Amino acid sequence: MSATQKAQVFRSFGLDQLKMEERDIPRPGAGELLIQMKAASLNFRDLLMVAGQYNPKLKMPMVPCSDGVGVVQEVGPHCHRFKEGARVSPIFARGWHDGPAFREMLKSTHGGPLDGTLQQYMLVPEADVVSIPDYLTDEEAAAIPCAGLTAWSAVVEKGPVRPGEKLLILGTGGVSMFALQFGVLSGAEIIITSGNDEKLERAKTMGAHHTINYRDKPSWEKEVYRITGGRGVDHVIEVGGVGTLEKSIRSVRPGGSIYLIGVLAGKEAPLDLTPVLMQDIRIQGVVVGSRRAFENMNQALAVHKVRPVVDKVFSFEETTEAFAYLKSGSHFGKVCIRI
Amino acid sequence: MSATQKAQVFRSFGLDQLKMEERDIPRPGAGELLIQMKAASLNFRDLLMVAGQYNPKLKMPMVPCSDGVGVVQEVGPHCHRFKEGARVSPIFARGWHDGPAFREMLKSTHGGPLDGTLQQYMLVPEADVVSIPDYLTDEEAAAIPCAGLTAWSAVVEKGPVRPGEKLLILGTGGVSMFALQFGVLSGAEIIITSGNDEKLERAKTMGAHHTINYRDKPSWEKEVYRITGGRGVDHVIEVGGVGTLEKSIRSVRPGGSIYLIGVLAGKEAPLDLTPVLMQDIRIQGVVVGSRRAFENMNQALAVHKVRPVVDKVFSFEETTEAFAYLKSGSHFGKVCIRI
Amino acid sequence: MSATQKAQVFRSFGLDQLKMEERDIPRPGAGELLIQMKAASLNFRDLLMVAGQYNPKLKMPMVPCSDGVGVVQEVGPHCHRFKEGARVSPIFARGWHDGPAFREMLKSTHGGPLDGTLQQYMLVPEADVVSIPDYLTDEEAAAIPCAGLTAWSAVVEKGPVRPGEKLLILGTGGVSMFALQFGVLSGAEIIITSGNDEKLERAKTMGAHHTINYRDKPSWEKEVYRITGGRGVDHVIEVGGVGTLEKSIRSVRPGGSIYLIGVLAGKEAPLDLTPVLMQDIRIQGVVVGSRRAFENMNQALAVHKVRPVVDKVFSFEETTEAFAYLKSGSHFGKVCIRI
Amino acid sequence: MSATQKAQVFRSFGLDQLKMEERDIPRPGAGELLIQMKAASLNFRDLLMVAGQYNPKLKMPMVPCSDGVGVVQEVGPHCHRFKEGARVSPIFARGWHDGPAFREMLKSTHGGPLDGTLQQYMLVPEADVVSIPDYLTDEEAAAIPCAGLTAWSAVVEKGPVRPGEKLLILGTGGVSMFALQFGVLSGAEIIITSGNDEKLERAKTMGAHHTINYRDKPSWEKEVYRITGGRGVDHVIEVGGVGTLEKSIRSVRPGGSIYLIGVLAGKEAPLDLTPVLMQDIRIQGVVVGSRRAFENMNQALAVHKVRPVVDKVFSFEETTEAFAYLKSGSHFGKVCIRI
Repeated sequence: MSATQKAQVFRSFGLDQLKMEERDIPRPGAGELLIQMKAASLNFRDLLMVAGQYNPKLKMPMVPCSDGVGVVQEVGPHCHRFKEGARVSPIFARGWHDGPAFREMLKSTHGGPLDGTLQQYMLVPEADVVSIPDYLTDEEAAAIPCAGLTAWSAVVEKGPVRPGEKLLILGTGGVSMFALQFGVLSGAEIIITSGNDEKLERAKTMGAHHTINYRDKPSWEKEVYRITGGRGVDHVIEVGGVGTLEKSIRSVRPGGSIYLIGVLAGKEAPLDLTPVLMQDIRIQGVVVGSRRAFENMNQALAVHKVRPVVDKVFSFEETTEAFAYLKSGSHFGKVCIRI
Repeated sequence: MSATQKAQVFRSFGLDQLKMEERDIPRPGAGELLIQMKAASLNFRDLLMVAGQYNPKLKMPMVPCSDGVGVVQEVGPHCHRFKEGARVSPIFARGWHDGPAFREMLKSTHGGPLDGTLQQYMLVPEADVVSIPDYLTDEEAAAIPCAGLTAWSAVVEKGPVRPGEKLLILGTGGVSMFALQFGVLSGAEIIITSGNDEKLERAKTMGAHHTINYRDKPSWEKEVYRITGGRGVDHVIEVGGVGTLEKSIRSVRPGGSIYLIGVLAGKEAPLDLTPVLMQDIRIQGVVVGSRRAFENMNQALAVHKVRPVVDKVFSFEETTEAFAYLKSGSHFGKVCIRI
Repeated sequence: MSATQKAQVFRSFGLDQLKMEERDIPRPGAGELLIQMKAASLNFRDLLMVAGQYNPKLKMPMVPCSDGVGVVQEVGPHCHRFKEGARVSPIFARGWHDGPAFREMLKSTHGGPLDGTLQQYMLVPEADVVSIPDYLTDEEAAAIPCAGLTAWSAVVEKGPVRPGEKLLILGTGGVSMFALQFGVLSGAEIIITSGNDEKLERAKTMGAHHTINYRDKPSWEKEVYRITGGRGVDHVIEVGGVGTLEKSIRSVRPGGSIYLIGVLAGKEAPLDLTPVLMQDIRIQGVVVGSRRAFENMNQALAVHKVRPVVDKVFSFEETTEAFAYLKSGSHFGKVCIRI
Repeated sequence: MSATQKAQVFRSFGLDQLKMEERDIPRPGAGELLIQMKAASLNFRDLLMVAGQYNPKLKMPMVPCSDGVGVVQEVGPHCHRFKEGARVSPIFARGWHDGPAFREMLKSTHGGPLDGTLQQYMLVPEADVVSIPDYLTDEEAAAIPCAGLTAWSAVVEKGPVRPGEKLLILGTGGVSMFALQFGVLSGAEIIITSGNDEKLERAKTMGAHHTINYRDKPSWEKEVYRITGGRGVDHVIEVGGVGTLEKSIRSVRPGGSIYLIGVLAGKEAPLDLTPVLMQDIRIQGVVVGSRRAFENMNQALAVHKVRPVVDKVFSFEETTEAFAYLKSGSHFGKVCIRI
């Protein structure tokens, strides 16, 4: 093991500020693991973090990205859950092991304010990592943590979506593709939207029952109504933010659920919540999930050998290009980096 | 039984259009009950209905009010749930007996589009009424249906609020007072807000643990933080609409719930939902509830001999004054009418 | 429509007492439907009913069987849910529309004490029937009610079984085959037992992941342990009664669930419940389900075009042979009768 | 701090084998706390443990008792949850922090196989203790862990018991008294049984609505029927084992729950489970609970200043007498030891 490692670091905000740096390889203390990172994946949150739009007061230098996978290289004293050679992923929020999150956990997240996965060696408490199923490639495994667990938390933990229920999924980004896969595992009847017919076709081969191109049908909520015989869907995976929320509210049946996901670009907009209270609707925020939920998700992935949708893999050196690609919005599924 | 009866009717919108009229007393058909009404209570929805602000397309003439209690006067053929002399209340939405509501049920509500409780004799399918506990006076019983069941649905059915959990209740109107009573039955630690110290004192005698005067502390969400040691509350009964929702969101802990209740005067306002998704928060619309929930609530009321908070009782002839009083907002609990 | 019809009737206990009789065709009263029955299916309960082992005080003459499907022939006054020509099935327990059953509902079941489905024309309140998806044949539809809804209530309503969870199913009878199908829809990892390798092979083609022949491995709970890596399963569909319950208890993980189903031949046996309380185990009785659950199940069936496993179809005249075949235990899935 | 301490230890089975011994005071390692114990309480499990009836293969010497409270005397390295001087209780099963227990946790319990609370100084991982509310005396705090958390897990976590629901509690021992207190906090209508009228009177002053002396009415399930108007109760706290389970099953409504608690003396008896499956009944084993549940319970206790029922306090030297008193069965609530 060499004494230094490479890491992607930004010392001021801006995608052009992201630079490869040399750093010392740390040694694991009590209860810690040193993980040799193999791959990472990008989320929209990471993009906003680097741009300074997520947390303007972020302390730098910072290694971005919450998602990644690696192999345990060295085990600190007083560890008992993992051994050298185990393939693991850090969880999103340290200390969030089960149940609802406490405020302090949600402030203890990788990729800001804690250093993230875009480094060759990462130090993490062993209580804050999970084991990764063997059948996945490193890139597939890296694609899972935030997007996969957010979708799982919505579809399975918060829902749960039951067999035969109608699930509307907005878009074909990372979270949406996992929601599609978990919706299929849960036996749902799935409607998916996109502005791109090719992406809709791919979604169909993955198990979507109905597709709506929102460019062809800007009032797509009416199409949802038509498809559901005027009844509305039971669940909506809402990743579009305030721009689409009113349509989502009109798409859901009385007593139905909307899972509010993602980091919204335009955050604030006028919103009429009257239909929410007049129809017993639930708007449920979803922020990733606990370690226990992560482990349950991995079990489901492994049983069904679900393959995460990896759109494109970049090299460690191409990190900036990878971010630019994510920003372009042309991806279908996840953008990954090989470390 | 006389062949005609009196009813409060409006034939065009406006509180001054509400007039006492003579009507024939109908006869119950198959599965129907004829109920001699004894008392009614007013909700903000009724006020908006008469004013034409709830449903501008409402068909008139209309008898307002969804809430009321009466005695079964005549039982139609093929009835088996109730007998002559039983004291009953019509449910809010016909056909909503259990489980989530379907859209058609929510369009089949008393006091608009169906005639309501402000008449001496009311015809209702026997499937759409519930039995009323003996210990309640007619006015107390009339106070319960919408406000009580909405509070019950939030605190017990949607929650449930568990012993030791922290429950924030906004205001001291009809729903809020029932929420306070059900919060006490559920063992919650209760924080209540009002702009009136006298009302806060009364809330304290009813079991509230902490009070906040929002006139003294306009940033009352900071006071909630102080009281909860920076943790936030588990549940919020939100009756203030978009005007208070942002503060409610800041008052709740990660993973907590906000029950969105009531008919909002100012419906649309800019709203930043980011904290909702960043902290796993649930915003749950609540629209009254099912017959089964009503029956469960009545059972809880009867076990604990809970006395609904009746602010003031008006005579049938004073109906317009009663509405004006409700509109003034000076009530604490419910405004009732003796028929 | 002829004025008389045929019905299978027993006037004293014993399978040999079951005779075809002529009866008048009744006319529907208010709220009732006259249904021309097309097919029925047999449950073990029906066998015990005819033999006098289910309810020794049963009033006779009695038309057996709770399960069947038919077409609405005539609609009584005051009906609004169904029209002539609709294909429907009666629900198991009249009045059980949603939520938990009340005691009186469970005493109001078809096939005893109320006349059942083995008649050409059946009179049922319209509130007590459900619509049947088009894609099913009559025999398939007839196979569903009790066995299908019991399995659905266990797997989806009481569970729910979540994607990736381990579900152990005992046997390959009617309920077990539906449990397998709903387990597959729910994304479970499924272990199934049988004493017959051929049946196990068929179960595998239907989606079972692991099979255990309990003749080869009488201590099959150890095999469950081996398969689950010593962890135990999350859920058990227990149809074997007290004879297998102790093994089921040893097969389940701490906090797991056992769904107790079926009418046990040998009812009483010594049972050590210590592991139940020492490991937080839930033993959940399951008795069919509500109309709402039936409708949800039908929606799931229709989305996935699930084909019920019909083992063999007998003619109306061969009813006694059909019962004898069920009794032999050699079936895989359901035994049906064409009316 | 002296270098040696006293501990109650048994080196072979039998209550007369329990002896006070001198032991070294250990030092806390990484992540560990040294707790100066102030008080303990006895459970029936402890009695069986000492007698060799709980686990005949138990390794000795052993310090008995899982329940106790103490003050943090020394904090090991890498601790961050507690400081010197904090008053804390060890949890029952090490590692069980939230969610369902895993098998290994249930084998890692204090008072056997791990040394228990009857020692002056106890070493526990800081992850395996909870903070204790200030308002409680040491004896009251010591009374809580197993009995209180078991009752809480049944009434609040597994139930939950809702306002107005009917809760039947068997007996007046430690768990039953906590169940009574949590039932009151949850707004239940409570029926309690005992063979002693004086104990029933005390239960009434604590909030029980109905009492049944099972010596006067050996068929007490009929009395439950009478009280509930033939409907049955919603929940039963079943601490009597197989001896009372059949009557409990007959006392509960269709769809109701029986919480199976405690270590049964006579473990095995013939049991007819038919009513369980015919009436949708849930039999739910309850084994103490997680750390998170413990913390939630403490919050509820603190809000309502609930005083645990301490029957009698013995000195550390009188430990054997305390066990004998528990064995006699004459207690009402908990038997404690001042250390």
